[in-house]
Amino acid sequence: MSLHHPTVAIVGATGAVGSELMTCLESRDFPLERLRLFASGRSAGRKLLFRGQGIAVEELNEDGFPGVDIALFSAGGAVSRRFAPIAVRQGTVVVDNSSAFRMEPGVPLVVPEVNPDAITRHIGIVANPNCVAIVAVVPLWPLHRHTRIRRVIAATYQAASGAGAAAMEELRASTAAYLRGAEYQHRVLAHPYAFNLFSHDTRVDPTSGYNEEETKVMRELRKIMDEPELRIGVTCVRVPVLRAHSIALTVEFERPIAPEQAREVLTCAPGVRIVDDAAENHFPMPIEASGQDDVLVGRIRRDASDPSGCSLALFVAGDQLLKGAALNAVQIAERLVA
Amino acid sequence: MSLHHPTVAIVGATGAVGSELMTCLESRDFPLERLRLFASGRSAGRKLLFRGQGIAVEELNEDGFPGVDIALFSAGGAVSRRFAPIAVRQGTVVVDNSSAFRMEPGVPLVVPEVNPDAITRHIGIVANPNCVAIVAVVPLWPLHRHTRIRRVIAATYQAASGAGAAAMEELRASTAAYLRGAEYQHRVLAHPYAFNLFSHDTRVDPTSGYNEEETKVMRELRKIMDEPELRIGVTCVRVPVLRAHSIALTVEFERPIAPEQAREVLTCAPGVRIVDDAAENHFPMPIEASGQDDVLVGRIRRDASDPSGCSLALFVAGDQLLKGAALNAVQIAERLVA
Repeated sequence: MSLHHPTVAIVGATGAVGSELMTCLESRDFPLERLRLFASGRSAGRKLLFRGQGIAVEELNEDGFPGVDIALFSAGGAVSRRFAPIAVRQGTVVVDNSSAFRMEPGVPLVVPEVNPDAITRHIGIVANPNCVAIVAVVPLWPLHRHTRIRRVIAATYQAASGAGAAAMEELRASTAAYLRGAEYQHRVLAHPYAFNLFSHDTRVDPTSGYNEEETKVMRELRKIMDEPELRIGVTCVRVPVLRAHSIALTVEFERPIAPEQAREVLTCAPGVRIVDDAAENHFPMPIEASGQDDVLVGRIRRDASDPSGCSLALFVAGDQLLKGAALNAVQIAERLVA
Repeated sequence: MSLHHPTVAIVGATGAVGSELMTCLESRDFPLERLRLFASGRSAGRKLLFRGQGIAVEELNEDGFPGVDIALFSAGGAVSRRFAPIAVRQGTVVVDNSSAFRMEPGVPLVVPEVNPDAITRHIGIVANPNCVAIVAVVPLWPLHRHTRIRRVIAATYQAASGAGAAAMEELRASTAAYLRGAEYQHRVLAHPYAFNLFSHDTRVDPTSGYNEEETKVMRELRKIMDEPELRIGVTCVRVPVLRAHSIALTVEFERPIAPEQAREVLTCAPGVRIVDDAAENHFPMPIEASGQDDVLVGRIRRDASDPSGCSLALFVAGDQLLKGAALNAVQIAERLVA
């Protein structure tokens, strides 16, 4: 790989994350020599603007990767499973935004604020974690380093963006239909979305009762933090918000920790911005997290259900498309070329 | 009081809950002799339809209560604090939907499925609990009777209806404005509401970090369940849903309890409907809870963060205007005349 001026490819360039990947590469002035854009045949030939120039979208096929140093995959698990190994065999390093390889033992699962060193151990693929896992771990990790975390209970408020650009459009269109009293037949998500919320519509394991999203979040948090025994319980809920995921977190530590200590730790933590103004009732909100690199953290308080003083409650919001996906992938790529 | 055919008054008849109170009295064929409707002077003279007849709204004043046997108050804490004692002195029994008297030692705080006997101890006022507390306690109580609950952690997804009819209209109007790219100046709630969510905008206690809504839920759950030491931690969040509140609950019991046991208990519990179809990914949703008397309960599973088997996770949704307010008040009134 040309370490300093690589050729970078985006696989899934026309999706919601693909578009944010281009924006991140541009805004962070990523030192690339050339950008190539791949998508399905349907989008081939379409031109997308990057650094003021139109780049034609190429149809993804098995011969596309020679000369590509880093490929940022964001076209779903099936595309990653099929094409990432081909890219790797052709010498490309893959940063994969899908869940296809995240839990494979040889694949580093990386949030640069947490485990940047894991990147160096890659054998061709670096996995970008699930968006909820990323948004949660950015504040959890510095707290864990300060006072060891024993248990995490999370309830999510996940935006449409997590299900892609089509889901965002379904939220808009179904809400507009509702407001004018018209029928709307939902196509992208499993349930009506206008002014409604629902349990994350991934498959539910009949034994555990947890859905795939929740299982991902729990497994991936343990892997990123390298704490295989960390106790985590997650409830994933889709809410009618366009982008940025929020999470209500209850965190049990091994020792008592005061909210003031946590606030101090988080104030210095990379990728975190404290939004915790009780007097103004100003706390993390998805509309303020949208477009922001940082994860917003607030409502930092002693968990009233734990008299030992070992538990804190907090509320966080992070842009699902940025830190939850594109930004984190580009940060990984930056480490690859550094 | 004419026990069998009382004169009933609704105070706050033109509000979101007031309108549902009329619907509940009608649909449940409440045995009333006469219905009187009170509101502010602004609405006086307006006629509202009840059992096919127009009833004129009267301006609320201090002389309105003679002859009223039961007054259902739903016009906010200030109106209750001022007029409920006056009504009681004039021989009226007040069922108060505001938070004004809920925590007063002599005032029963009642959810008929939980503590109906408390009603008999009233000295003029029976308080109707906070809507989140009601929706949570309906499934928590039968579980607690089966296996004692030790700790509850709750994250709420609260609808616009909880802040009244004006907030529901603000959600509709601000969302419509957003969709057509227009500005919208929010007036009712503290934050922009279109495709956004925010921490419940009641005052935050600077010491505990909990807001008033959360404090109400925690205190009221303890009082309704008569468990003053029950450990509860709540995070209250307003989501862009029109009506029906949802809650993600993590519940620690004194002894292990299997999800199957909990499901069995809840299947027989009054006011509960199990919606827990993992194969179809069908769980409690606000649009399906809306207009329903029952609290929907699903996602019943072992809490993955507690290896002892003593904790369960569940997700519930209940109509904030019905069981969370009007229906519960009418159920209390039914007990008063029974």
